[in-house]
Amino acid sequence: MQISGHTRLIAHLGYPTESFKAPMIYNPWFADQSVDVKVVPMGVKPEDYAALIPTLFSLTNIAGALVTMPHKVATCELVDRMSPTAQIAGACNAIRREADGSLTGDMFDGDGFVRGIQRKGFRTTGARALVVGSGGVGSAIAASLASAGVSALTLVDAQESAARALADRLHAHYPQLTLTVMASDPAGHSLVVNATPLGMSPGDPLPLDVERLDAGTFVGEVVMKQEYTPLLQAAMARGCPVQRGTDMLFEMIPAYLDFFHLPVATPEQLQALAEIRY
Amino acid sequence: MQISGHTRLIAHLGYPTESFKAPMIYNPWFADQSVDVKVVPMGVKPEDYAALIPTLFSLTNIAGALVTMPHKVATCELVDRMSPTAQIAGACNAIRREADGSLTGDMFDGDGFVRGIQRKGFRTTGARALVVGSGGVGSAIAASLASAGVSALTLVDAQESAARALADRLHAHYPQLTLTVMASDPAGHSLVVNATPLGMSPGDPLPLDVERLDAGTFVGEVVMKQEYTPLLQAAMARGCPVQRGTDMLFEMIPAYLDFFHLPVATPEQLQALAEIRY
Repeated sequence: MQISGHTRLIAHLGYPTESFKAPMIYNPWFADQSVDVKVVPMGVKPEDYAALIPTLFSLTNIAGALVTMPHKVATCELVDRMSPTAQIAGACNAIRREADGSLTGDMFDGDGFVRGIQRKGFRTTGARALVVGSGGVGSAIAASLASAGVSALTLVDAQESAARALADRLHAHYPQLTLTVMASDPAGHSLVVNATPLGMSPGDPLPLDVERLDAGTFVGEVVMKQEYTPLLQAAMARGCPVQRGTDMLFEMIPAYLDFFHLPVATPEQLQALAEIRY
Repeated sequence: MQISGHTRLIAHLGYPTESFKAPMIYNPWFADQSVDVKVVPMGVKPEDYAALIPTLFSLTNIAGALVTMPHKVATCELVDRMSPTAQIAGACNAIRREADGSLTGDMFDGDGFVRGIQRKGFRTTGARALVVGSGGVGSAIAASLASAGVSALTLVDAQESAARALADRLHAHYPQLTLTVMASDPAGHSLVVNATPLGMSPGDPLPLDVERLDAGTFVGEVVMKQEYTPLLQAAMARGCPVQRGTDMLFEMIPAYLDFFHLPVATPEQLQALAEIRY
C-alpha cells in the first residue's frame, strides 16, 4: 500500500537509525491488512529529543511512536502517564496519543524478550539470570524476568549507579528476589542477556566473557544490527541455545499493535511477511 | 523500495493532508531510481507549525520538506534564506537543510504553473491574467507570470490587504506591468487562475463567475482534490482550455528534485510512474 495523504504515521525514534528493523516488519503487515499506517524511521540525537516529542505529537496524522535507543529512559519524563511495567523499567518504548491529546507511555521490550525465550523452551520459574546493561531495555527485561518468576538476578552496567538503581526498583516490587549487583561472570547462570549496545559497531568488545559461559546457558541478545551478533556466534559455538534481537522484536509486536489499536498479528504471521534487510 | 532504517525523509507539510498527491508522484520515481528517500505526509495545524520546523529539521534523516497550504507564507519567517522567487512570492513551498544546519526556502509553484500552460500552447508574453487568491500559491503564480512577460495582472483575494501587498511587491520588481486590484470579473482576460482553496470541499462556491468567462480563456487550477474541479468542469463546458492542479505539480517537480539534490525526472517520466488516488 503506497503512501498517500490518508496515511497515518508511527514514528520510529532512535539514533542511529541504520539498524532499525521495525519498518520492515510492521509495514508489510499493515499492507497485508489494508491498514493505511506506515512506520517511518526518524533519527533523533539525545539533545534534540525532548523538544521533538511535543511537536511530533502535534501532527494530525501521527498514530504513535516506537522508541528505541538512546531515548527509552528519557521518554518517561515526556509522557503524561506510564503503565506499571514502564514504571518499573524506568523506560518506555511506545508512546500513544490519547483522544484528549495527552501521551501514554508503555514498555514491551521485557515482555517480548521473556515470551520469546519461553516459547523456545526456556523455563523462567526459578532461573538465575545475568542481565548486562541496566538502561531502558535491560531494565525492562529484568522487570519482566522478575515478573516471570526468576529466583535470582545479577545486574551489571558500565554505570554502577544505573545497576544499583535498577536493583532498588526491583527489590521494592519483588522483595523475595535475590539481587546481585556488578558481578559480570556468566558462570552459574541459566540465562545471560546482552542489553547493551555492544555488537552494534564492528570491533565492539563482547559484552561478557564467553569463555565463562556454561554449555547449557541460554544467551539472549537485544542488538539487531546483524542477525547473529559476535556474542551469539560465540555462544552457539559453545553449544548454548540463543535468542536473536529480532526474535524479541517479533514477540513484542503483538503487544505494540494492541497498544496502538491496530490489527494484531501473531509473531508467525509477522515473520512470514517481514522483509528484513541487515 | 521498502522503508528501512536507511530511508531518508522528505516531509510533506500541510493541513489537511487528505488531498496530498506528492507522495504518489515522488515515491514511485524514487523507487524507480533506487533512491532510498520517501515523501511522507505530515499534517500540521497553523498554530503548531512554527514550533515544528526547528525540531523536524533536527531529525538526522530528514532530506527536506515540501510545504503546502496553509503554511507557505509562514515558512518565510522560519528559514534562514530564500531564493529571489520566494521573496517576491512572499511564500516558500520547499525547505532544504544545508550542511551547516541552516534552512533555505524556495518556491516552485509559480514556475510549475507557467511551464505547464506554456507547454499546453498558452503564450504568456503580452497576456492579460486574472489570479484569484493572493496567498502563497497565488503570489507565486503572479510572480512567475510577471517574469514570463504578461502585460497585465488582475489580483483579487478575500483579504483585500493581501491582494494590495502582492500588487506592491510585483510593482517594485515589474514597474511596467499593469496591475488591477480587487476586480474579479474574468471577462477580458486570456488567462484565469484559481489560486484559492475553493474546490477542496464539496459545496464550495466557485471561485469566480464562470458565466463571464470568454470562450477562449485559458483556465488554470491549483486545487488537486479532484482531477477536474467544478471550476474546470464549468470552464471545459464553455470550451475553455484548462490546466489541472496536478499538471502544475508535475511541472514543478523537476525543479524540486534539483533543489533537493535528487535525480531529476521529466514531467512525462513522473506521469508514467505516478499512481494517483483521488
